[in-house]
Order: sequence, then structure tokens, then C-alpha cells
Amino acid sequence: MSAKEYNEDHRIVYYESDDTGHLTIAMLINLLVLVSDDQSNQLGMDTAFVNSLGVGWVVTQYHLQVTRRPKTGEVVTLKTKATAYNRYFAYREYWLLDAQGDTLAYAEGIWVTMSYATRKIATIPEELMTPYESEKTGKLPRLPRPERLDTTATVRTQPYTVRYFDIDNNGHVNNAHYFDWLLDTLPADFLRHHEPTDIRIRFENEVQYGHQVVSEVVQHDLTTQHQIKLGATIAALATVTWRKA
Amino acid sequence: MSAKEYNEDHRIVYYESDDTGHLTIAMLINLLVLVSDDQSNQLGMDTAFVNSLGVGWVVTQYHLQVTRRPKTGEVVTLKTKATAYNRYFAYREYWLLDAQGDTLAYAEGIWVTMSYATRKIATIPEELMTPYESEKTGKLPRLPRPERLDTTATVRTQPYTVRYFDIDNNGHVNNAHYFDWLLDTLPADFLRHHEPTDIRIRFENEVQYGHQVVSEVVQHDLTTQHQIKLGATIAALATVTWRKA
Repeated sequence: MSAKEYNEDHRIVYYESDDTGHLTIAMLINLLVLVSDDQSNQLGMDTAFVNSLGVGWVVTQYHLQVTRRPKTGEVVTLKTKATAYNRYFAYREYWLLDAQGDTLAYAEGIWVTMSYATRKIATIPEELMTPYESEKTGKLPRLPRPERLDTTATVRTQPYTVRYFDIDNNGHVNNAHYFDWLLDTLPADFLRHHEPTDIRIRFENEVQYGHQVVSEVVQHDLTTQHQIKLGATIAALATVTWRKA
Repeated sequence: MSAKEYNEDHRIVYYESDDTGHLTIAMLINLLVLVSDDQSNQLGMDTAFVNSLGVGWVVTQYHLQVTRRPKTGEVVTLKTKATAYNRYFAYREYWLLDAQGDTLAYAEGIWVTMSYATRKIATIPEELMTPYESEKTGKLPRLPRPERLDTTATVRTQPYTVRYFDIDNNGHVNNAHYFDWLLDTLPADFLRHHEPTDIRIRFENEVQYGHQVVSEVVQHDLTTQHQIKLGATIAALATVTWRKA
């Protein structure tokens, strides 16, 4: 049995794009969450229902492969399915397609349910997965991990304070904002003339409103290694591979 | 003769909302620009055409009156017209309507054309206004000005660095981001329990990528006075009136 697919169209608008006129990676992440939220709402699995089971969904890892970032004005199709899950982890796939049905980006995400009572990872409630016709399996695909930061190389760092408007309706920092912090440390000239092709990110520890985080980056040719630190704690670790634009 | 109206529907999505689940003021500004851009494109007045005349549109002032901020998931109608103009200023009106056609927000904006050659305000080219059937008039409505900051009161300040992703496709800072800087200085608890009803903002000087600006705020009961400074220069001045939510 294959999981239910869900898709919707979306027009890329100017405030979702960077100064080259292309969808930002932060907004691409927002669109992934949007389409999966919309599928969940359609299946009656809205946040209120999820929370009524004493848990909340949290993403721990994404792997994105980008062929081409769409431009402002382009209408794209967002597609997703909750492919498979086991006791603790749910594996979801996402596609961003152009008007011809060609893949602009493909993404995989690993999600867990956190218990509100224990603040720890909880067994995924069966009733949360059934409506998606997600496959229960012992063996989930493993996403490639981001590299540890090469601390023998030159590390560029930049502080960022978590702002009120970084917080979601669920009271947590919207994960998309990590990409603002991660990528803003790179020189504008690099960002204008390079395109991300492969992005791996792991969210390791939560940051909160008012926290001051530090975004660290090491560049090796067309690979950039990133981490977001809160004091000595790693909040997120990411590796991005680029091509010349 | 009355100016041509243009409208489109828009669904408010989660990444356009704050932690109370309502459209942020920054995103409201983005939606105003979106609907006027869409009207301009429909009339063949796209950015490339405007730039071919040696000028670019720049907003100098907004006045927003907000009845109710729409919630995530709500489908709203954005409406606008380029009501009137004179030699140097264009006056545009905007409406945000709910599904019943009731006004959620009403906004007015004053726009000028800046010459690329002189970097100064230029006479508005007649051919830029004709397609909108905008009324040429000697007397334009004046928008209420924001108050000067009461420097005898306690001024709260917060620094912000202009990020790469704050920059638009036109190479300038997206004006919507001023509202992130302006409002983030207020306590989260205030923002959660108050709704903006009247917002006046004037953009006085441009800020650029990499600049460190300071956001200053003075609070008098339900009125907050704001300014964004770049060194000793005022970049923007704003006054917001609030009601208890």
C-alpha cells in the first residue's frame, strides 16, 4: 500500500524571493510545511487534534535536493506524502514541480512526536498515521547527515537574536528562520552567483524567543558547513552543496 | 473619472502569521505591494518598463487603519487603485476585505518616482499613470504624519543588522522588514494582547545591506512612537495606536 499523495498549486510571490528573484530556501521550507499542514487539515489531523493526544509534531531532519529554484510569478505544484513510519520516526517526502511537471526540488523530512507531559520523544500514536495510509515499517530510509564543522578551517561567525516574529502559532521558532541565519553569514556576492543543490540539516536543540544564537560557517569550495549554536550547545547543523549560477 | 480598481484573492498562510495566528503587519505591507504589482503587471507597467523610463517607484509614506487582522487559513480579497497623482506624488488606496466583503484594513500610500541618473525625486512620467486612469490633480490627500519621538520619555532601543534576505529583487530593502524591526522592540506580552488599529509610517532615508540600524520606541499607554536610525540619520518614523485584544 502506498501513502496518500496530496498536492496544491502555489504562485511564488516577490516576498518569497531573494534579490535574484528566486524562491529563498527559507520559503521553500515554509512551502513544505504548508503542503503537509494542508494535507493534515484535509484529513482531520489538524494541530488541535494532534495536541489533544498530548503530543506535537517536530521535524528533526531535512534533506533537500534542488534542481532549479522557481522565480517570482511562477506557479508551482507542491506535492507530499507521509511515506512511512516506525515507532518513533515518520518519514515524509515532498516535491516542488514546475508547470510542465518537472521536479524543481525534492525533499525528505524526518518527524517525531514530542510529548507535552515529558518534553521528550513519544511513541507516534497509531491514529495519527492511519489517515495518511502511511506504511508502518521496521526500516525507514536514513537521511544523509550534515558534516561536523571543520574547526581547523576559518570559521566565520555572526550573532542573531531570535525575534518575536520568528515564533510560530505553536509557540516555537519557525524552522525556516534557521536558513536566514545559516545563509546570511555567506557573502552576498557568493549567494548571488551560486545555487544550492543539496541541503542537509539536523535540528538538535530548540532555541527560543530572545535567545542570542551564533551562526557559524566554514567554506570549502562549493560546500559550506554550518552550525547554529546557543552558547556551547549545537541547535542545528547543516551542510550545503552549491553550483555556480 | 475614477481610477481602475484591481482585486485578487489571497489565502493567509501560517508563515504570514505571528504566534497569535494572525497576519503580521509586515506581511500586510507585503500584500499591499503584491496587489499593486499585480495590477501594474496586468496593465503592462511592470518593473522593466518603469525602469526603461529611467525611474523606479519608491513609497514614502503609508497610513493603515486596521479593523481586524485576518487569521491563518482565511481567504481575503486585496483591492487597490491608483487614485490620484500630481507632478511628484502618486496617491494609492488599498483594501483588505473578508469573505463577506467587510473591510479588515484600509491603507493609503504615497509613492514617488526616483531618477536612476540623479538619485532624486523625478517628475512622474505621464505614461506611467495613464493606464491606471489615475486622476491628475493639484491637491492630493495628505496622510497623517507619524509623531516625532518623545525623547523626554524612556526610549527602548534595539540594534538590527540589514540581512541579505531583507533585500528585494530591486536591490533595496523590502519596506515590510521595517515593521519587524519596529515592532520587535515591544515586549512579546504586549504584542500578544494588543491589536494595532492605526499605523502611520514615513520612510525618510534608505538603509542598505550590512547596515546596522537601531530601532527606538517610546510607549505612551496605547500609542507607541518608533524610529529607525542609521547613525544620526532617521531612516523611518512611525506611530502605532493599539487597542486591547
